Amino acid sequence: MPGQLDLGQISLDRHSPQPLADQVSSAIERWIEGGALDENDRLPTTRELAAALGINRGTVQAAYRQLQDRGLVAARVGSGSVVRGRAARPRELRLETLLSHRAAELSDDALAPARSGSVADFSRLAPDERFFPLEEFTRTLAYAWSRRRDLWQYAPPLGLEELRAEISRRLSDLGIARTPEEILVVSGAQQGLDLLFRTFTDPHDVVAVESPTYSGALALARLSEVSLLPMPMEDDGPDARPLRAHEAKLVYVMPERQNPTGITTSGARRRALLEAAIASGALVVEDGFEEPEPGRTPLAALEPERVAWLGTLSKDLVPGFRIGWIAAPPSIVDCLARTKKATDFQTPVPLQAAVAAFLRAGADRKARAARLEEVSQRSAAAAAALSAHLPGSRWTGGEGSNPLFWLHLPGGASGRAVAQAASARGVAVSPGGDFDPLRRDLPCVRLSVSRVERRDIEPGIARLAEAIREVQSGMSAVLAAPVV
Amino acid sequence: MPGQLDLGQISLDRHSPQPLADQVSSAIERWIEGGALDENDRLPTTRELAAALGINRGTVQAAYRQLQDRGLVAARVGSGSVVRGRAARPRELRLETLLSHRAAELSDDALAPARSGSVADFSRLAPDERFFPLEEFTRTLAYAWSRRRDLWQYAPPLGLEELRAEISRRLSDLGIARTPEEILVVSGAQQGLDLLFRTFTDPHDVVAVESPTYSGALALARLSEVSLLPMPMEDDGPDARPLRAHEAKLVYVMPERQNPTGITTSGARRRALLEAAIASGALVVEDGFEEPEPGRTPLAALEPERVAWLGTLSKDLVPGFRIGWIAAPPSIVDCLARTKKATDFQTPVPLQAAVAAFLRAGADRKARAARLEEVSQRSAAAAAALSAHLPGSRWTGGEGSNPLFWLHLPGGASGRAVAQAASARGVAVSPGGDFDPLRRDLPCVRLSVSRVERRDIEPGIARLAEAIREVQSGMSAVLAAPVV
Repeated sequence: MPGQLDLGQISLDRHSPQPLADQVSSAIERWIEGGALDENDRLPTTRELAAALGINRGTVQAAYRQLQDRGLVAARVGSGSVVRGRAARPRELRLETLLSHRAAELSDDALAPARSGSVADFSRLAPDERFFPLEEFTRTLAYAWSRRRDLWQYAPPLGLEELRAEISRRLSDLGIARTPEEILVVSGAQQGLDLLFRTFTDPHDVVAVESPTYSGALALARLSEVSLLPMPMEDDGPDARPLRAHEAKLVYVMPERQNPTGITTSGARRRALLEAAIASGALVVEDGFEEPEPGRTPLAALEPERVAWLGTLSKDLVPGFRIGWIAAPPSIVDCLARTKKATDFQTPVPLQAAVAAFLRAGADRKARAARLEEVSQRSAAAAAALSAHLPGSRWTGGEGSNPLFWLHLPGGASGRAVAQAASARGVAVSPGGDFDPLRRDLPCVRLSVSRVERRDIEPGIARLAEAIREVQSGMSAVLAAPVV
Repeated sequence: MPGQLDLGQISLDRHSPQPLADQVSSAIERWIEGGALDENDRLPTTRELAAALGINRGTVQAAYRQLQDRGLVAARVGSGSVVRGRAARPRELRLETLLSHRAAELSDDALAPARSGSVADFSRLAPDERFFPLEEFTRTLAYAWSRRRDLWQYAPPLGLEELRAEISRRLSDLGIARTPEEILVVSGAQQGLDLLFRTFTDPHDVVAVESPTYSGALALARLSEVSLLPMPMEDDGPDARPLRAHEAKLVYVMPERQNPTGITTSGARRRALLEAAIASGALVVEDGFEEPEPGRTPLAALEPERVAWLGTLSKDLVPGFRIGWIAAPPSIVDCLARTKKATDFQTPVPLQAAVAAFLRAGADRKARAARLEEVSQRSAAAAAALSAHLPGSRWTGGEGSNPLFWLHLPGGASGRAVAQAASARGVAVSPGGDFDPLRRDLPCVRLSVSRVERRDIEPGIARLAEAIREVQSGMSAVLAAPVV
């Protein structure tokens, strides 16, 4: 064998599920394929290699047989095993071996086009951009940008100071006391949640979530390869008892108008959740997609040292912006800023400046008031249509300006089947299974009135009711069919 | 013991470095702390538990002693071991247990303020924003935005079609044939590289890099917990031979004016690199921070099926924008888009529209031409100053409009010591060790003239030369000192 290689250095993992013989033959194959072993190079005898590796000689013989089978090695009389030359390695990439385990966890339909909703689209939660004062915003922004040259370079890791000052004021209105130094600007709440996962979890760490919960959090949990601990949603919030018996890293919750159930967590459940989080050692991530109604205290105000608040403008301005923030104790914010800096340096500074000017002018408040008024009317129309077309049906959410309805399907019908049947009728709804931490098909669908015109709500729900009855009649047909 | 808990279900990991007794006591401690075991609950006898877990009775006795030492369990005559109650669990978070292994890999100085450079700042590679036509851009953008409402919502996962079409045209000028469907818009090249790591590597996978290499790539490699395989930089590019003997996932290279060495890889080295990458099964990531000069063929043009091109506007417009792209075979782009969608949905659409309009107008080309002319003059001044103040010194880079100088310090002086001594004189340079895959202190410093006024170059290099001599005299003093 060639002098520069020492086959005795093959590193073997005795705990690996891969048999030792395979490990040996793979290592030699890599050297042949890589050109480190050339044609006609002699391999050590099986006895020599077994001794060098401290393994059974039969294992090395098995490895050499594998290499012979692959045409890489020949047994020659008098000279032992010699390299025959490398196999023709395909020039194409083998995607199945290239893809990481974590990325393989992402579902294949992640890039699927949105569901069809030619009659009514109840599947989108993003607010209607008609409530966004575009002209005012463009003016504010052109003015803010034209005066400054500092917006075009790299910025402080936490984000633009003037924006963090505005966010700090907004948070104090909610009872959350955070200085600008305790706020990290991120590229949307989704990135904020991703940073929390990457900074505070390793694979197999426990993360507690409401069950059902926001599907975007489930995608990140899969990419992070954490173990999910479901906390079942009751009518007044999550049951945190499962958390008490585990050491957890993060607890992800949405106490106001939870996505997908629309449920607001009661004060008693909030306190029980915080106590369980303290017992488990976890950091609580409070998703502030919906701001608390007057009288409700955010978790971040009840237990500031234990809670990271995740804020966003996607709801009150527009999602296209991708501006969000994390407000948390300084040591937490520091760790997150380090991850943020390593992964994308910063959130675009010009956008931060424009948003700061816009918040200063209170434009988000105005846009919000107009939107809530419209959503209230839509939700009332949806509730009336559900009662009319699905008498006796049960749902959570939908009260006041809450755009979310979590509809329990009568008779335990499949949420996926109903979503599919509704889609065939031009009505888009989200199957409950999209929100299940355990990827089960739930007998529920989520409806959102955020993007549905008032006049389309009643016809849309009428067709949804037809779809539900179709799925139910299929179920009874199956139940009634004789067992062969 | 209480009926709902079965201590026999404690899951033990016999391969863990944590002793079995510790694993048993930790599990019981968690149940006590979490409230699943209450005060005065009786634990099973050591004999019962040992039998249930299939372990030695002495191990269980050791575990119970640990619990007694912690005050959690008491041994009572006649009733065995009983729970005394939970310890007062601190309400503060324990950051050291919360932080993930990957995030702990990021260095503490990630958030340190930039180095001092009151006389001359040779540490920054970001282009001078004076070459950015701000007024023109603001006008373009206000016009582009005011006419459209589709920019404010969620967009296709690959990014805005009109921007991808412009990028496709730019790439074809470089000899890289990619349709808009083979391009993913990302929030800066750094995010692009992060997506490549997350999508295609798991911890301990092999990633080959030039040595030295871009420090931002090293930060991402640490966050991804991959094994780095250094390919030493020679004067005409990286030596790819180490790659041939390994199965690698990614090969990250910068063939044009490499950061930090300023070296452009020769045609022969490019071909050898691609062959080694094919032998190793890896995807090549070609960082196109600097565009190829006429006559040079990008790796992505030589071997399209094996190379992902990483593009950016940070160099030719401004870094504050955070717009970049990955151009790669469709199957690679699909996987990356899935990760992108899960982690931040999309790059801000309004910025994508503004950049598309700007590229269409050729504004980047104009800004680039003005910048290159200025950088050429600065680099010539720096080369003259180095020759004058450090006669006989050796460096790579700095030719033509190349802003990078990789200076080999005479006598093997410490790059970190020189950077520190220079900083004390108001001159900022980057120590070579920042770019070393193995985190060694190298006898090199990196100088960039991107952000230094022409008049400050000669005085800055004069002081750098003083700093080098100071460090060298300290070294000779140490060498000359008697050994005690």
